[in-house]
Amino acid sequence: MRLITFLLSLIPMAVAFGQEHEHSHGRVIEFPDVPGYKTLKCDFHIHTVFSDGSVWPTIRIEEAIKDGLDAISLTEHIEYQPHKEDIPHPDRNRSFEIVKDLANAYDLMIIHGTEITREMPPGHSNAIFVQDVNKINVDDPLEAFREAKRQGAFIFWNHPNWIRQVPTGMATLTDFHRQLIANHLLDGIEVVNDVTYSQEALQIALDNNLTVMGTSDIHGLVDWQFGIPEGGHRPITLVLAKERSPESIHEALMDKMTIAYFNDILAGYQKPLELLLKSCLEVGKATYQGSSSVVNVALANQGDSPLILRNKSPYSLHAHADIITIAPHERLTLQVKTLEQLSEFMLSFEVLNAVYAPEKHPVLSWNVQVTP
Amino acid sequence: MRLITFLLSLIPMAVAFGQEHEHSHGRVIEFPDVPGYKTLKCDFHIHTVFSDGSVWPTIRIEEAIKDGLDAISLTEHIEYQPHKEDIPHPDRNRSFEIVKDLANAYDLMIIHGTEITREMPPGHSNAIFVQDVNKINVDDPLEAFREAKRQGAFIFWNHPNWIRQVPTGMATLTDFHRQLIANHLLDGIEVVNDVTYSQEALQIALDNNLTVMGTSDIHGLVDWQFGIPEGGHRPITLVLAKERSPESIHEALMDKMTIAYFNDILAGYQKPLELLLKSCLEVGKATYQGSSSVVNVALANQGDSPLILRNKSPYSLHAHADIITIAPHERLTLQVKTLEQLSEFMLSFEVLNAVYAPEKHPVLSWNVQVTP
Amino acid sequence: MRLITFLLSLIPMAVAFGQEHEHSHGRVIEFPDVPGYKTLKCDFHIHTVFSDGSVWPTIRIEEAIKDGLDAISLTEHIEYQPHKEDIPHPDRNRSFEIVKDLANAYDLMIIHGTEITREMPPGHSNAIFVQDVNKINVDDPLEAFREAKRQGAFIFWNHPNWIRQVPTGMATLTDFHRQLIANHLLDGIEVVNDVTYSQEALQIALDNNLTVMGTSDIHGLVDWQFGIPEGGHRPITLVLAKERSPESIHEALMDKMTIAYFNDILAGYQKPLELLLKSCLEVGKATYQGSSSVVNVALANQGDSPLILRNKSPYSLHAHADIITIAPHERLTLQVKTLEQLSEFMLSFEVLNAVYAPEKHPVLSWNVQVTP
Amino acid sequence: MRLITFLLSLIPMAVAFGQEHEHSHGRVIEFPDVPGYKTLKCDFHIHTVFSDGSVWPTIRIEEAIKDGLDAISLTEHIEYQPHKEDIPHPDRNRSFEIVKDLANAYDLMIIHGTEITREMPPGHSNAIFVQDVNKINVDDPLEAFREAKRQGAFIFWNHPNWIRQVPTGMATLTDFHRQLIANHLLDGIEVVNDVTYSQEALQIALDNNLTVMGTSDIHGLVDWQFGIPEGGHRPITLVLAKERSPESIHEALMDKMTIAYFNDILAGYQKPLELLLKSCLEVGKATYQGSSSVVNVALANQGDSPLILRNKSPYSLHAHADIITIAPHERLTLQVKTLEQLSEFMLSFEVLNAVYAPEKHPVLSWNVQVTP
Repeated sequence: MRLITFLLSLIPMAVAFGQEHEHSHGRVIEFPDVPGYKTLKCDFHIHTVFSDGSVWPTIRIEEAIKDGLDAISLTEHIEYQPHKEDIPHPDRNRSFEIVKDLANAYDLMIIHGTEITREMPPGHSNAIFVQDVNKINVDDPLEAFREAKRQGAFIFWNHPNWIRQVPTGMATLTDFHRQLIANHLLDGIEVVNDVTYSQEALQIALDNNLTVMGTSDIHGLVDWQFGIPEGGHRPITLVLAKERSPESIHEALMDKMTIAYFNDILAGYQKPLELLLKSCLEVGKATYQGSSSVVNVALANQGDSPLILRNKSPYSLHAHADIITIAPHERLTLQVKTLEQLSEFMLSFEVLNAVYAPEKHPVLSWNVQVTP
Repeated sequence: MRLITFLLSLIPMAVAFGQEHEHSHGRVIEFPDVPGYKTLKCDFHIHTVFSDGSVWPTIRIEEAIKDGLDAISLTEHIEYQPHKEDIPHPDRNRSFEIVKDLANAYDLMIIHGTEITREMPPGHSNAIFVQDVNKINVDDPLEAFREAKRQGAFIFWNHPNWIRQVPTGMATLTDFHRQLIANHLLDGIEVVNDVTYSQEALQIALDNNLTVMGTSDIHGLVDWQFGIPEGGHRPITLVLAKERSPESIHEALMDKMTIAYFNDILAGYQKPLELLLKSCLEVGKATYQGSSSVVNVALANQGDSPLILRNKSPYSLHAHADIITIAPHERLTLQVKTLEQLSEFMLSFEVLNAVYAPEKHPVLSWNVQVTP
Repeated sequence: MRLITFLLSLIPMAVAFGQEHEHSHGRVIEFPDVPGYKTLKCDFHIHTVFSDGSVWPTIRIEEAIKDGLDAISLTEHIEYQPHKEDIPHPDRNRSFEIVKDLANAYDLMIIHGTEITREMPPGHSNAIFVQDVNKINVDDPLEAFREAKRQGAFIFWNHPNWIRQVPTGMATLTDFHRQLIANHLLDGIEVVNDVTYSQEALQIALDNNLTVMGTSDIHGLVDWQFGIPEGGHRPITLVLAKERSPESIHEALMDKMTIAYFNDILAGYQKPLELLLKSCLEVGKATYQGSSSVVNVALANQGDSPLILRNKSPYSLHAHADIITIAPHERLTLQVKTLEQLSEFMLSFEVLNAVYAPEKHPVLSWNVQVTP
Repeated sequence: MRLITFLLSLIPMAVAFGQEHEHSHGRVIEFPDVPGYKTLKCDFHIHTVFSDGSVWPTIRIEEAIKDGLDAISLTEHIEYQPHKEDIPHPDRNRSFEIVKDLANAYDLMIIHGTEITREMPPGHSNAIFVQDVNKINVDDPLEAFREAKRQGAFIFWNHPNWIRQVPTGMATLTDFHRQLIANHLLDGIEVVNDVTYSQEALQIALDNNLTVMGTSDIHGLVDWQFGIPEGGHRPITLVLAKERSPESIHEALMDKMTIAYFNDILAGYQKPLELLLKSCLEVGKATYQGSSSVVNVALANQGDSPLILRNKSPYSLHAHADIITIAPHERLTLQVKTLEQLSEFMLSFEVLNAVYAPEKHPVLSWNVQVTP
């Protein structure tokens, strides 16, 4: 059966199947835009059978669509080709070529990329926004970075915490990396890779002005690796871009307007992180309970990550201690004891699961107007 | 139909219904015992049609059994009897009398109690472990407390944060209460009542050596008031008692060995709180990942409350930032970066949703032995 | 706490609780209206503490609102008053009086009723649409029926299959009942009572021109007796009434325009049953799969009961054998093999879980127009 | 990352992920063994990138393990190789060779197979239990079948209802197929393929002594095609084999001891179907309700398919009409009205969602012993 093209195989199963499955929340990753920026959901570290992944490139497009992503890169290892016996194709642009039209048809941005795969140092690095991967396939690692940059690449250091290359799991800058940075050949660093998070990588980013990245580095199936049926999600980079375009993503990456998102962690520079959190946590209508001085304030979490808040307001709460967890997309009424009825008051939270530096959490404040 | 006794009506519906409904986790509240103590689940503030509640006393027994409670009190208002036209019975012990045998049959401890119901001060207070409520039905409030004490009562101040009596919602000690305390007529205070929490009440407890209480103060149905079908639970007092007996509960209450539990909050004195948390959070086997210095540590939450942990260990983590949430009854592998392979190491967490004073959270430590 | 009226206690808990619980489908019972009739959800057999039930009458109003009912009756036993020691009130209209204003405030129709409670024959019978229950409280059973009828009652025989009165569980007409029917003193019969169904009662209804009734006969809590948290529902009578008014319900009951609904069973006279099923099972757009002669037909179940269909169409199906189950509110695409492309075709189903007589199921047909 | 072999990539994600996801029922397909036979779960129609599938063969092993299968075949099209430009490998045994050791390591039986892919007639056919697919790669279709048979193959006709080859979707025997059957070159026929069911194919099986097959014919991901997260499952053939071995499967296939399972349909010859159903539907303890003649009988569905039963017993039921649906793995108490208390009685059900011929359903009977 199925002497059909892959495009045809992508027709939703519901038609053939004759049944719509019930679907509570869906797996589409959802975060709100922020004032002046689109919040783009991106995964720039992905493998297929064209390096050491286990699926044909088309599956990566379908996974991205199901996850509601805006942009991906297929980043095949240049130097590591374990399926070479079966897939001897010498063109390192091949997986990108196979699916670029399909991605277009879905309005998914596919950014041409590759993984420069070396022993440490420099370890593995992704170059995205490249033109021709074959030209990057050279012996000298430094020359590979230079060629990628000549093509206009944004380059980031992959899994600096990988225990296979760094047995302590502690990301540590090498002289080689310092040289790359000094020569503007390294722009970012993965703070989240696959199912790991590295606070040392975050510190390296801050110390060296590198962009914070979060990627899936998926080899198998996203559904299995990240527990999609159980409510999990793939790690991604949220990119705050002026427009939904590759150019705008490139600009935002160079401007470090990113947040790595995984496992309830939101990690990034303070500016994009606070912009995102202010849009995620919506403070709505405030009204006093009768003639008391306890005011109900409507809170809503508009994003996919739970928010673990510590109350930093000058008031205690009527139904919570100092910690408030607000689940993804939950609405919650906070009851604030303002001592007397006020026409406006200050609400302030530290967001404990967001980090702009190791163990540093943003504090957000609102001047809440009371509805009489 | 149903010319039958209430005992018969309590036969599980499954038989008559011909069908066992699927039941994922159940509503039974579960917390582990702690070394040397039973962790008893108690609700000592409950109403029925015999004061201003909406159900016959038997329903309260059934609710308690469904919730897996060990002990309850029916605490009818002495002075407030809105159903008097229909239920003129003058005996204030009546609701207790109706169900004491039924509770016994279920092995549920029912502690005889009542609510002394006055304007502020002293507001409302529960006296439990009493013998005859009718004798407490006197005009002079102080005399009511004295009579309760003569009967052997444990007495606690109800909802000191009630906005109907305290429009700020801020629990505040009055001279009357100071006098009660000085005369050993007040033993405890509700830090949790119904759907409220009061950090001011917690401070009053600490300052005055009062026992921390958490109660449902249920008038309608537990299922509806606390969202049982949606996974909610009634507020309770966890009592760490040497034995599962009324005497032992009384002793534990006088010893302040209690934790108020509701809405993911665990509030109590430092000693019982840390005992409970140490039993809830189980640290299991630890093994290094191959030859790396990243060690997998098995954590398990044995209780019904999520635990929101802040890592206070001298090590960073491989898959978490500094905050780790562990859901009720979840098992989780923590990956700790110990820099070199150790045979033992220190793990330390602040439990942010537990409070032993306003904004004060217990810190627990484990000396973890590594399995080679 | 809670020196408040019952009306106040009915304010949704969400406000006080400060949290909206997530709620997948809700417990509101939903069936579509049918052409010319409102489909009203009614439960005319309910007890409170004023006979042998376990709740104050207000709880019955709240339960009915949560279940989305249009009309209820509180049908206290006249002759059986096990709480008399505590509730000596001699007025048999009392529970109705307590809540009629509350029901009005909720736009819930409360039909004044009672249960005439005798040994067999005649056993138990409900009289609804009565004026004064006290006048029905007479020794002679026949006179009780006559008085109810003088007041304008609709009277039905309760649980004719009750094993306490009929050890075989087989509903059997007695001479007394024949006499009642002959004298127009009995209008209906419970085919569904509590968690039972009686096909013998259905046959008695058909043979004697009695209205088919389904009731909860609730004594405890609806949530527990019928497994609401697990997706269960109380048994009800669906009344096809010209308007949403007590008068129209009375007319519909006398016209036998009812369906008893419980445990996936829909039982009633053929006319109302087929009207309801035709509205529940919606046949939508039909389009051929490309140039094949397999046509996709959109089916939707608009009601709360699953529908178990047997294909009686002259065509076989492409994804089903002869039995098709369509879950409540499910949408499903049926693939029909019409042998050639037709502009219209006949679709026909026997609805196996609907009964208009013992083991007799309605067959519904549609002339489906194909969208080119 | 991940310079690792595929075997390593199969290590459960839980370790790396540091978290066990909660898992209600799992996706493992479960059916009980039957007396004298193992009930083996088999899928003998599967594609990978080595023909027109979208995944590397290893993914097919992982999917099968997750689904709890006992045996699979990778059945690449011999004649259709749309990825030839990238995967020019000329060896048609290649996908089998890549994963046979991996399958062994998992104790999954992998039966060497292939799909002979022709225009109609004969359309597509799978040959499983072959030795060398390359030798079957010949022009003359008849010769391809002969060579497969020489290698010991079991051969079945694929999707005889495929609208691309049969626009009516009606499976129809051709002279070519009659010739194959006459020459013992065709042993089975797919009654279930992907998301379709063909009652005409079932009739062809019966008329020509062919084995009934059900297969996924998966090209993309099993999780997506069959809605695994929503509780769906892949179509399979349940093979009743004397042992869990390839030899025993071959023997069972030749003996027609199979049931095709999908979309709540169980289709097969009467003998294996009734054996399976008797093991799925367990009739347990029977006890009378008090002194009544209503007997409670414990029923349990031990399999993954719901069972839609029609009561064919000589008794009516106390809580059901004539149709009883018992969900997968549900336990249910049937209440049977036996008119008097019996020491044993006959219970009999037609299983409406099981078919041994078009619109023919097995009837199962039990002689139930009553426990006094």
